[in-house]
Amino acid sequence: MSTNLEGNRAKLLISCPEKPGIISTVTNFLLEHKANIVHFDQHTTDPQAGIFFMRIEFDLEDFDSSFVQLESDLHVLARDYDLDWQLSSNKKKKRMAIFVSKMDHALMELILRWKSKEIPVEIPMVISNHADLKDVVESYGIPFYHIPMSKETKEDAEKKALELLKGKVDFIVLARYMQILSPNFISKYPNQIINIHHSFLPAFVGANPYVRAFNRGVKLIGATAHYVTNDLDEGPIIEQDVQRINHRYAAEDLKIAGRYVERRVLAEAVSWHVEDKVLVHGNKTIVFT
Amino acid sequence: MSTNLEGNRAKLLISCPEKPGIISTVTNFLLEHKANIVHFDQHTTDPQAGIFFMRIEFDLEDFDSSFVQLESDLHVLARDYDLDWQLSSNKKKKRMAIFVSKMDHALMELILRWKSKEIPVEIPMVISNHADLKDVVESYGIPFYHIPMSKETKEDAEKKALELLKGKVDFIVLARYMQILSPNFISKYPNQIINIHHSFLPAFVGANPYVRAFNRGVKLIGATAHYVTNDLDEGPIIEQDVQRINHRYAAEDLKIAGRYVERRVLAEAVSWHVEDKVLVHGNKTIVFT
Amino acid sequence: MSTNLEGNRAKLLISCPEKPGIISTVTNFLLEHKANIVHFDQHTTDPQAGIFFMRIEFDLEDFDSSFVQLESDLHVLARDYDLDWQLSSNKKKKRMAIFVSKMDHALMELILRWKSKEIPVEIPMVISNHADLKDVVESYGIPFYHIPMSKETKEDAEKKALELLKGKVDFIVLARYMQILSPNFISKYPNQIINIHHSFLPAFVGANPYVRAFNRGVKLIGATAHYVTNDLDEGPIIEQDVQRINHRYAAEDLKIAGRYVERRVLAEAVSWHVEDKVLVHGNKTIVFT
Amino acid sequence: MSTNLEGNRAKLLISCPEKPGIISTVTNFLLEHKANIVHFDQHTTDPQAGIFFMRIEFDLEDFDSSFVQLESDLHVLARDYDLDWQLSSNKKKKRMAIFVSKMDHALMELILRWKSKEIPVEIPMVISNHADLKDVVESYGIPFYHIPMSKETKEDAEKKALELLKGKVDFIVLARYMQILSPNFISKYPNQIINIHHSFLPAFVGANPYVRAFNRGVKLIGATAHYVTNDLDEGPIIEQDVQRINHRYAAEDLKIAGRYVERRVLAEAVSWHVEDKVLVHGNKTIVFT
Repeated sequence: MSTNLEGNRAKLLISCPEKPGIISTVTNFLLEHKANIVHFDQHTTDPQAGIFFMRIEFDLEDFDSSFVQLESDLHVLARDYDLDWQLSSNKKKKRMAIFVSKMDHALMELILRWKSKEIPVEIPMVISNHADLKDVVESYGIPFYHIPMSKETKEDAEKKALELLKGKVDFIVLARYMQILSPNFISKYPNQIINIHHSFLPAFVGANPYVRAFNRGVKLIGATAHYVTNDLDEGPIIEQDVQRINHRYAAEDLKIAGRYVERRVLAEAVSWHVEDKVLVHGNKTIVFT
Repeated sequence: MSTNLEGNRAKLLISCPEKPGIISTVTNFLLEHKANIVHFDQHTTDPQAGIFFMRIEFDLEDFDSSFVQLESDLHVLARDYDLDWQLSSNKKKKRMAIFVSKMDHALMELILRWKSKEIPVEIPMVISNHADLKDVVESYGIPFYHIPMSKETKEDAEKKALELLKGKVDFIVLARYMQILSPNFISKYPNQIINIHHSFLPAFVGANPYVRAFNRGVKLIGATAHYVTNDLDEGPIIEQDVQRINHRYAAEDLKIAGRYVERRVLAEAVSWHVEDKVLVHGNKTIVFT
Repeated sequence: MSTNLEGNRAKLLISCPEKPGIISTVTNFLLEHKANIVHFDQHTTDPQAGIFFMRIEFDLEDFDSSFVQLESDLHVLARDYDLDWQLSSNKKKKRMAIFVSKMDHALMELILRWKSKEIPVEIPMVISNHADLKDVVESYGIPFYHIPMSKETKEDAEKKALELLKGKVDFIVLARYMQILSPNFISKYPNQIINIHHSFLPAFVGANPYVRAFNRGVKLIGATAHYVTNDLDEGPIIEQDVQRINHRYAAEDLKIAGRYVERRVLAEAVSWHVEDKVLVHGNKTIVFT
Repeated sequence: MSTNLEGNRAKLLISCPEKPGIISTVTNFLLEHKANIVHFDQHTTDPQAGIFFMRIEFDLEDFDSSFVQLESDLHVLARDYDLDWQLSSNKKKKRMAIFVSKMDHALMELILRWKSKEIPVEIPMVISNHADLKDVVESYGIPFYHIPMSKETKEDAEKKALELLKGKVDFIVLARYMQILSPNFISKYPNQIINIHHSFLPAFVGANPYVRAFNRGVKLIGATAHYVTNDLDEGPIIEQDVQRINHRYAAEDLKIAGRYVERRVLAEAVSWHVEDKVLVHGNKTIVFT
């Protein structure tokens, strides 16, 4: 949580093999740059020989000049200490493209949270393989691109989408987008494509999870937001939640009930991604909520 | 839960002092009218001398004529057995007015669920003491009435609202409406006005519950949907839920986090009211979910 | 929920193919026998041509004689109307055998709820393939039988267990019992053996679910109570729940955290089974909570 | 979460007025002492002029000698930088006294988690104003002291309890102890007495919360674990949770249902206290889970 939407705040993510003194090194570095640490989160997979993850949120006075200096010095520090790092400024909002098909509930949840500024993000475009949602998207002043897609046209369609996205978008959200992206497409946005799957993965991997949940007689249905990888439904999980159901819910009722948990889970995951709270470690995530 | 949106389904609510044979009497009556019972719910506050509550959902063949006959015969049955009853048909959707001030999250949740048909309801009008939400409401084709309200103009404003509502509306939802309705207004819609209070009542009765929750250091924040009575925040509770927070949430963050649980709780309560699943008993409700 | 632990209450479960008038028939029958209905629950899988399920809780005056008469007359009614039925009296507690291996958390939860009378049940015996828990079980005055089991001795061991159970036990709970029962054994207690599986089935079917949950990076871990059938982990689910975890939980931590949700889920399922609230329909359950 | 129960781990809690460089200072200090940081948590109430809270879990090689040195040097550091601090070693378990009256559910939850080593704590004694639970407590090898208490004998009884506790106990848990401790008693264990209140505070402050919850018709009941202060039910909240109920729950049923959430909430709070995860800030807590 952070209510600071002003421009003097920055976030630094660091990961590296575990080594002694890494916290001291980085906090000393920030102190030298007159950064005032507001939030500090840390995780190590194994204190002996694991991977170290760190997220620091800090304020800078005289932001514009000091941020540039800090970023430039970070390159040196990172090289010396072999750090993976990512630095972002609250001054520059992340740009999110939404991919959608016909169902609008996940899309609308994102649009409402964007409009209310609950999620500080820009939405430069919505792309869909159907034209159905064109009007509602455009009514919010968001450009809508209809790119039809069939087995035959997939390669061309993805190419067209990539051209639209190029340089305009930082990450992509599949808000119930009923197409499978190609490895080529995914490779352009590694750990930058978020999907919402309408089951509590790994239960009901694949198609029609609600029908299968109904047939199995589960007592809770779920939803899973994850980064998209080439292994379908196997990417790093960002957030999951469930909702209680009972024998009165027909298969169709599960779909309706599920929408609500899908919306919540996706919105949380997007919010955390936007605030740089998610770090990927292999097929898992560390989320500093 | 009910996926039946077709016109051959009806719902019968009955309450009466507990007496032997009441279930037999009513189910025999329905059998004689060739009603096919789909859902049956029952509750008694005390099997010896309590109040008996019943909700029956049933299908009718040859609906139009048989519904009229059943309704007419119910008057006789109810008189003979001293029953309070309410009969409704899926053919006729309930009509809901939404009262709102400036915050739109609760309003939008209701509009989206109405649009997606998740809540089978009509929205003949939105009334607000501010003009801010006029455009967004009208973009959904819903009439919007701006009725400013101050201490001095309250009586006139309520009168104007009552005129707009008259004959056009079955129940009212206060979707974060920041005005207190007068006893006179409330008396026109007994147990037909639903309010969403942004706390887990009876904790933080009154104003500014999020600020007070922050100051008290609670670990969960909540929301409560209840019917409006003359005793502020004391009406029959329909639904409540909570959301986990932690020390990182500033008072302002609680407001944002709380919006989500407010939306969910209000939408559930409205949905149950629309489906005739809520019966009021004194200051409490029986909800047949 | 029912606080009535007195001896004048009975519970009747009925299932049959959906047919008109079944509720009237049964409630008239009960009225004739002067039964006072306290709770009535009903479900139909399809109002046109489904299966109808009903649970009625009722009080009888002059219990001893009227219960015998009602039971005897039910045989006739059931034959005439082709009903499956089960009648039980609060006077006669169900008898539960607990099977356990070395871990005691699920066992202790059941023992504590039995001792506090939260679950109105008798525990005539605990059977284990290890001797570890002998002392703690016997300290509660419950007979403990140690029946070692290996691949070679399984048939004999199960035979010995069946002899111990015979006539003394109504149902069996596998409270983290680390052996797979044979089809022969299971056939003696159809839908009368409850298992607790330490995952949110169908996720992580099979062995070591916590390790696999850790490796998959899920954000919630779960537990599932189900009736045991010959298809491992595929029996009708009675109850499920989940618990939130995060990246700080090592695989070992998941086991500890999981114990808590296992305990809760198993205790709920056993409680519902004891109160005749669970009806099995194919591979699913209807639970009238 | 921490699975490290070995003796080479220590935990350092620090609080102080917010000042630049405090993280650097402390982590440099630990680096000089060859501490290997495993978990680092931090919170500030206000980055400009608030209070700064920090919890560091770290391993030490050659533990026995280096821990002594580190502790001694910490006195100097704390004086120089005006730090409040607390250092603890996993080698030395905290000692918990349990105060109980007649109800045993909260007591048993703590005993079971102690026995299973889920909560790494010692229980040198249980003190009760009734003799009822003497046998069960002693069956676990825990000394039990019966100290009757009435209005007249309160002062003496508390004196006797304080003598028993003196030098043997680090903190006290009131596991449904139905007596109000005097300010004098509380002053001996500031922020070291944990109470479980059977409501979702501040709802239903005071006596009989379940009866009042029933009368108010709430849809969730809760429990609250908090540190005891002289203001009854107003101490810093450590943990809260809720459980869904419905109209079928009689007042007596709420008590039974509530036990479960009481047990969970109290066990969590005690576990966090034992692991030094709770810092008190005025009337609130920071919990680094």
